[in-house]
Amino acid sequence: MRLVRCLLFAAALASAAETPQYSEKGDLLFPANYREWVFLSSGLGMTYGPQTAPQDNPRFDNVFAEPSAYRSFLSTGVWPDKTVLVLEVRAASSKGSINQAGHFQSDLVAIEAEVKDEKRFPGKWAFFDLGKANPHGRMLPAGASCYTCHAQNGAVDNTFVQFYPALLPVARAKGTLK
Amino acid sequence: MRLVRCLLFAAALASAAETPQYSEKGDLLFPANYREWVFLSSGLGMTYGPQTAPQDNPRFDNVFAEPSAYRSFLSTGVWPDKTVLVLEVRAASSKGSINQAGHFQSDLVAIEAEVKDEKRFPGKWAFFDLGKANPHGRMLPAGASCYTCHAQNGAVDNTFVQFYPALLPVARAKGTLK
Repeated sequence: MRLVRCLLFAAALASAAETPQYSEKGDLLFPANYREWVFLSSGLGMTYGPQTAPQDNPRFDNVFAEPSAYRSFLSTGVWPDKTVLVLEVRAASSKGSINQAGHFQSDLVAIEAEVKDEKRFPGKWAFFDLGKANPHGRMLPAGASCYTCHAQNGAVDNTFVQFYPALLPVARAKGTLK
Repeated sequence: MRLVRCLLFAAALASAAETPQYSEKGDLLFPANYREWVFLSSGLGMTYGPQTAPQDNPRFDNVFAEPSAYRSFLSTGVWPDKTVLVLEVRAASSKGSINQAGHFQSDLVAIEAEVKDEKRFPGKWAFFDLGKANPHGRMLPAGASCYTCHAQNGAVDNTFVQFYPALLPVARAKGTLK
């Protein structure tokens, strides 16, 4: 029994959720090890408005999910309360080392977070600007365009699962696609 | 003491390395949960040879490192024995949902692995073709171009750390860049 309890404890520790942490002012504390979270997908130069000319300086955006939230999504097709997703924006380089064409990721441009905290935020979700890994992230005001765009266009629960190919089949199978 | 032993055991379990596993024929067994490994970077349409026209159909490539190997690299700037890296190739879509320009990732195209197993492979590293998540991955023959290209051009220990912005500063700080 002692071994069983120890194994259960070990499993609990290994899967311990990193829930969002806030400062007294309501800023989001930077989730320092987000680079070890689960990668959802990456886009290059994605733009949501109409535009006629290609971008001169497209950027990559990488999205990471806190691991326990990711595993919960795999089981249910929805995000649990206290989910934290991180968007990391990076510059795109083209010529470098042996690369001749296409783009690879380079300097960090910005980090943003989307947090689900059902009792804390009126719309359940909020967005935070973490600059370039600032210790505290300022919450974006309710009028910011990200709130309406995610609510209107996110395929699952305020999030762009339509752009995350590893999660899209899960949402289809669970019937949680909007 | 019992609690201490239990905590140490839990920590060991939580950080247990996933070492490469092989079939009797020497194929690499598919590392089924590589999508939960640590994301190193993503490129779009990267090409190493000279070319004059842009690619009509560029692809994304995502690279993942087994977590214990990644943490070892953060400490030392080199890859430990038994490191497994996975390259996931995905199609790039442009028009879809609200996206108007740029590219986002879609269907899986191929999975390859690069494995460091110092006693098993003459050059310490070997490459495996895992198709679209085949249970067994065939080892690429020693004459395949990936062997010479990685050996000649990889910035650190047979790997393209020059294209992994989260690891490049580590290699610089540890003095392990070629």
